[in-house]
Amino acid sequence: MPYNKPEEMMRMAEHPEGLGPDELRVVGKREPKVDAVKLVLGKPAFTDDVEMRGLLHAKILTSPHAHARIKRIDTAKAKALPGVHAVLTHEDIPPVRYTTAGQSYPEPSPADTRSLDSKVRFVGDRVAAVAAESADIARRALDLIEVEYEVLPAILNMEDALKPGAPVIHDEPDVRGAKDPKRNLAARIDARCGDLQRGFAAADLVLEREYRVPQVQQTPLETHVCITWWDEDDRLVVRTSTQVPFHVRRIIAPVIGLPPKRIRVIKPRIGGGFGGKQEVLIEDICAHLTIATGRPVKLEYTREEEFISARSRHPQILRLKAGARRDGTLTALDLYVLADTGAYGAHALTVQVNTASKSLAVYRCPNMRFQCDVVYTNKPVPGAFRGYGAPQGFFATESMMDELAQHLGLSPAEMRRRNIVQVGDVFPLAAQLGEGREGVENTILSCGLPQCLELATKAIGWHEKRADGAPHRAAIPGKPHLRRGVGLACVTHGTAIPGLDMGGTYIKMNDDGSFNLLFGGTDLGTGADTVLAQIAAEVLGCRLSDIIVYAADTDMTPFDKGAYASSTTFISGGSVKKASEDVARQIKEVAGRIMEENPAVLSLHDGSVWSPSGESITLAQVALHSLHLEDQHQIMATASHMSYKSPPPFACQAVEAEVDIQTGEVRVLKMVMAVDCGRVINPTTAEGQIEGGMTQALGYGLCEEMLYDDEGRMVNARFGDYKILQADEMPELVTIFVPTDEPTGPFGAKAVAEIPMDGVHPALANAVADATGVRIRQIPLTPERVWRALREAGIK
Amino acid sequence: MPYNKPEEMMRMAEHPEGLGPDELRVVGKREPKVDAVKLVLGKPAFTDDVEMRGLLHAKILTSPHAHARIKRIDTAKAKALPGVHAVLTHEDIPPVRYTTAGQSYPEPSPADTRSLDSKVRFVGDRVAAVAAESADIARRALDLIEVEYEVLPAILNMEDALKPGAPVIHDEPDVRGAKDPKRNLAARIDARCGDLQRGFAAADLVLEREYRVPQVQQTPLETHVCITWWDEDDRLVVRTSTQVPFHVRRIIAPVIGLPPKRIRVIKPRIGGGFGGKQEVLIEDICAHLTIATGRPVKLEYTREEEFISARSRHPQILRLKAGARRDGTLTALDLYVLADTGAYGAHALTVQVNTASKSLAVYRCPNMRFQCDVVYTNKPVPGAFRGYGAPQGFFATESMMDELAQHLGLSPAEMRRRNIVQVGDVFPLAAQLGEGREGVENTILSCGLPQCLELATKAIGWHEKRADGAPHRAAIPGKPHLRRGVGLACVTHGTAIPGLDMGGTYIKMNDDGSFNLLFGGTDLGTGADTVLAQIAAEVLGCRLSDIIVYAADTDMTPFDKGAYASSTTFISGGSVKKASEDVARQIKEVAGRIMEENPAVLSLHDGSVWSPSGESITLAQVALHSLHLEDQHQIMATASHMSYKSPPPFACQAVEAEVDIQTGEVRVLKMVMAVDCGRVINPTTAEGQIEGGMTQALGYGLCEEMLYDDEGRMVNARFGDYKILQADEMPELVTIFVPTDEPTGPFGAKAVAEIPMDGVHPALANAVADATGVRIRQIPLTPERVWRALREAGIK
Repeated sequence: MPYNKPEEMMRMAEHPEGLGPDELRVVGKREPKVDAVKLVLGKPAFTDDVEMRGLLHAKILTSPHAHARIKRIDTAKAKALPGVHAVLTHEDIPPVRYTTAGQSYPEPSPADTRSLDSKVRFVGDRVAAVAAESADIARRALDLIEVEYEVLPAILNMEDALKPGAPVIHDEPDVRGAKDPKRNLAARIDARCGDLQRGFAAADLVLEREYRVPQVQQTPLETHVCITWWDEDDRLVVRTSTQVPFHVRRIIAPVIGLPPKRIRVIKPRIGGGFGGKQEVLIEDICAHLTIATGRPVKLEYTREEEFISARSRHPQILRLKAGARRDGTLTALDLYVLADTGAYGAHALTVQVNTASKSLAVYRCPNMRFQCDVVYTNKPVPGAFRGYGAPQGFFATESMMDELAQHLGLSPAEMRRRNIVQVGDVFPLAAQLGEGREGVENTILSCGLPQCLELATKAIGWHEKRADGAPHRAAIPGKPHLRRGVGLACVTHGTAIPGLDMGGTYIKMNDDGSFNLLFGGTDLGTGADTVLAQIAAEVLGCRLSDIIVYAADTDMTPFDKGAYASSTTFISGGSVKKASEDVARQIKEVAGRIMEENPAVLSLHDGSVWSPSGESITLAQVALHSLHLEDQHQIMATASHMSYKSPPPFACQAVEAEVDIQTGEVRVLKMVMAVDCGRVINPTTAEGQIEGGMTQALGYGLCEEMLYDDEGRMVNARFGDYKILQADEMPELVTIFVPTDEPTGPFGAKAVAEIPMDGVHPALANAVADATGVRIRQIPLTPERVWRALREAGIK
Repeated sequence: MPYNKPEEMMRMAEHPEGLGPDELRVVGKREPKVDAVKLVLGKPAFTDDVEMRGLLHAKILTSPHAHARIKRIDTAKAKALPGVHAVLTHEDIPPVRYTTAGQSYPEPSPADTRSLDSKVRFVGDRVAAVAAESADIARRALDLIEVEYEVLPAILNMEDALKPGAPVIHDEPDVRGAKDPKRNLAARIDARCGDLQRGFAAADLVLEREYRVPQVQQTPLETHVCITWWDEDDRLVVRTSTQVPFHVRRIIAPVIGLPPKRIRVIKPRIGGGFGGKQEVLIEDICAHLTIATGRPVKLEYTREEEFISARSRHPQILRLKAGARRDGTLTALDLYVLADTGAYGAHALTVQVNTASKSLAVYRCPNMRFQCDVVYTNKPVPGAFRGYGAPQGFFATESMMDELAQHLGLSPAEMRRRNIVQVGDVFPLAAQLGEGREGVENTILSCGLPQCLELATKAIGWHEKRADGAPHRAAIPGKPHLRRGVGLACVTHGTAIPGLDMGGTYIKMNDDGSFNLLFGGTDLGTGADTVLAQIAAEVLGCRLSDIIVYAADTDMTPFDKGAYASSTTFISGGSVKKASEDVARQIKEVAGRIMEENPAVLSLHDGSVWSPSGESITLAQVALHSLHLEDQHQIMATASHMSYKSPPPFACQAVEAEVDIQTGEVRVLKMVMAVDCGRVINPTTAEGQIEGGMTQALGYGLCEEMLYDDEGRMVNARFGDYKILQADEMPELVTIFVPTDEPTGPFGAKAVAEIPMDGVHPALANAVADATGVRIRQIPLTPERVWRALREAGIK
């Protein structure tokens, strides 16, 4: 297809309103979100927007200790409080251990969690659950539960976890062998390719650096919320703000003691997830309480509970050793990561695998090693968070690229240009890093990274500001304490987990030529429902408003692995396209009989079926004919889709920042992201993803960090103290699409959901280094940290 | 298949617990209804069982005149009543004329109805609609609506409708030509075969008789009820007690001015329909009121409104001339019917077509004619009612068979035996009576009628009581005023409308080997959901409890023409079987890969997939493998089904009755129905259908009749005055299944829904004639009517 040619990609990137070929009528267009109106008008669309007679409100008693055993727990006084209907402790529920990870079924995650346990492993771990007539009564009941703890020594620093004599956090016999000296090791990874020793020997320059990234939180505007009830068939309905409705059903079934067929999970509109709702965190407790009371129960996290008891991003210490020739060619990369998975390890292995499989995959390097230890600590639990390990890795690799360039006297842009991957390349560690499933194949088939690099640098003014490769370090007249710099990062990501993720679609045609489109995919606010409806409308030749979307509901919609791994457009969208194509084929067959034409020559667009001579009949005519007149049948189809390919999107991130060398304050002036996410199905929703991702990544680089006191208590578990960027604090944001045509994606699409999270923070650190000459290897770049680094470097 | 052999049919009829071949595990078994528990426990399952914030209650002002023009209507005072939110008249709604008939789309029915019109055509016709905060306020508002009528002369007797100078009931120009002298003729039928004149000439006996059947009502326990509201996407949701959810959507769309894609119709559990809910009677008004107010609105008929403003069975006057040879062979049948369709004619043509197409189809007769005039009158409106014209016809034909037999000196059983149809016969009038669609073929492929006749007569004691063909007329010692007699009727019916009806199914498999079964079919309490789930369970090799049924919902479930024409098991069940077979095929493919076996040799039963050697894996293993492990896909399928055949079920009805010749009271002692409905999928629900149908037919024959005063006001529009039989008034009921294997039906099934309505009332009249020697040609056989007939005949 023409627009994988570089010049065509550049042309299309400069005309962002017409991203699709001319023949496309819905795909590639700036369609409004299918759920926009109801959300803007505040219609009852979210989990909490239902009224139920007899609804009880749940609250959870959490541990004040980082590590303790519950010696005695007395709920008598709490139960006696008028309005309290149930108080549950670990003594009341079946002792089922499970993993909360909502990835697909066969992924290896330790079954280290119980709904309620006799041991608590972090400040915020669950102790008991109450259901009462009101949230206020439930809260008062929590105060009446008497718990006697045996406080145990705690691990509050990941570097202490593997020390001899460290307390053992998971001493339950069924999780790990009792005599294992590495009992706090949740996961370990060792992957390598080529010959590391020879690689470093061939280098003209070898650098070894340590980078540190903090624990940060997803902070969705809608906290975790769930309502459970028994329906009239004594089936448990779980209405929940989840990314993974089908995994919720599968995971809670054994935990609550019901077969999946007696559970129905409904996912309404979701107010953000970012990975935090990829885990099954509250549905079990809510269900236990409905089972205990027979009543509908709602459990909704407060913002503080969301910070402490939900999930977050794994903090890591990354030690990266890199070798390069004088001309910039990379010869060896050796990355060691120590990662903290907190008290539970659902994502211990998989997040850290992703750290390497993304950050080491941007550049060609024949000799690589990745080693990782993921340890338990007595801290709130990291899990899935947009980027899923990659943002951590890119902070190391993309800082290192600048450090290498500086030592080699190359422009960081040129350094990258000389090493970036191209079409036809294969990432040599892929198979060892979780993509070795049978049938999976990793050759890059589409890559717009060179164009991204060119367009992002152009847009940030790189060529004027660092034309000679020298630092920018612009002084501003009259403001001698301010320094400006520009920084880059090249990043890549995946598009779904190859050979693993799967989605399904069911489409039926209505009397008026409209379509019900039912899929299991999960729109978290990203616009996925809109994008999938566009794919259907394009194939079916109708307007977007003729597609009635319903998703997701485990009783009605086909299975979908859920919204994670940037997969929805690619996987769920792939199933939508297949099912739509089957429906289109049936439409053409019926129309062919009516029009006395060969179905193969007919085309669908503008709500009609067209013959080559320009004759047409409407989709409504076809539907009425098929339903009522001749050879009657319901035009409908189902389709599943999975992929053995995970085609990587690529991006170049450019940041211009200004540093106040008196205060250490960093102000970002402009952020440019040039993205190859394949064909852009909807430029508006894709831009939304990119701008939102850059915003989150800027928070990661600049100001966000979960902080603890000496006893493991999070000290900034509220907005304000935990700083997320506000709209009026954001710099100018520029998105540039470099469309490619990915042959394995629906209409050429690749992922766009996570890659915006990957490049901002290293590009920012590179811009700060450019502005000040000082390399800071730990984020967030708070004024204090920058100020200290500048002082240590003698700048003031 | 073996059991279409007569001796096998007889053997199976005598072992009713094992109606299916041995290899069937779910089909043919007495499974409990899938909705039994929730109904018994009173769970919220019906239309009315929802709570909605802001619900308004609707009431309808109806006409006190049989025929009038609305000259002026003033709603100001009603609107001013506090709590009233809307008052609608014909001035407020678009002037759309439509038909309320919920058959499939292309059936010809006159578009003679408006939601609200400027003319009223019967006492009970709609004048205005109110929505208010409570039903009580709405009722008071009705009293405040001022209507000035121009009262017109009315037609209250069908025999007056076609008289010159009769008032014209539908004078709207768009319904009929303004100068048509037959303007009260709603439909006319003329069908014939053979040579009538020659047929009568060949007869040794020609009889000509007139029979009369009354207007009766369906009286479902749940009256018509509907709730409409706007959902969060501004789509109109219609939750309604309907037999035809997809037709509701299609029919109301132009009436309320919304495209079908903005309408969702949900059918919950239904408390009986019997055809009365096959028409779209209240959904339009409810929707108009939601559109006018923006609020949820509920409209529920009182019992009186149900009697007067809902639907009923067409009363008919039937003139039947029949010729037979001395040996009983029929030579000619000439039937003329005058039928009354009341003020509107949605079912004018089709019900009367069915009168002939069923009642003339039981016996071989080469020369036949059927003529019919269906007229408008100013009476409450007949429509679809279980049997749909056939019970009227059978009263004439099955009475006549006894009259012929008596004149010929034959036993009525023998008279029937000599004439009944057999396998290979074709009903010669079929094509003229609406079954002439392209592709339709009417040859009988399965027929257990001879066995039904044998078994029913045996069970009623016919051979002892009328061994010599002489009347029974048993005297009871000590009770000289009582006379006993036995009577027979042979009947047939259809199984769906061939070439027209269609149903669709969508099935998906869950993690635990359970299945979601979604179809558009409409269980009205008949057990259809259970029967369809049994078909799926049989094919899928699981327990009935592993099938999760959802039906019907125009957004979720595939199209289905709805529950009428005894079609659900055959048409919807056919689609369930096809979709299940597709799913079973997919299961075997996955299992074949796991078991390393050829899928073709595998079988499904007892929740597992079995190899010929006895190895097995569970359905849950197959599901988990398919969803998560290898070549991932959602095992699922869709299928539609229609049929060019409408295989007739057959039955012989036997009744033993006792007549009190002093009072005219008729007491029925025993009713036996021997039925060939093909393979019986669920003997329990089939018995329920048969016993319920016999009960309704006995009411038709004995005590039910809608009665009017001289101004067209129904005088017995309440239970008690309108007598339906109570449980403790019912005689012994015996059901005998004569299973055949119908090759066109799922697992050999034919229909059972309507045929029980066909034979009781003629068999009863025949039993009364047997008991008393007096032939009464009009039902119901009330004490007064019987007493008068006996007195006229000189019996006292």
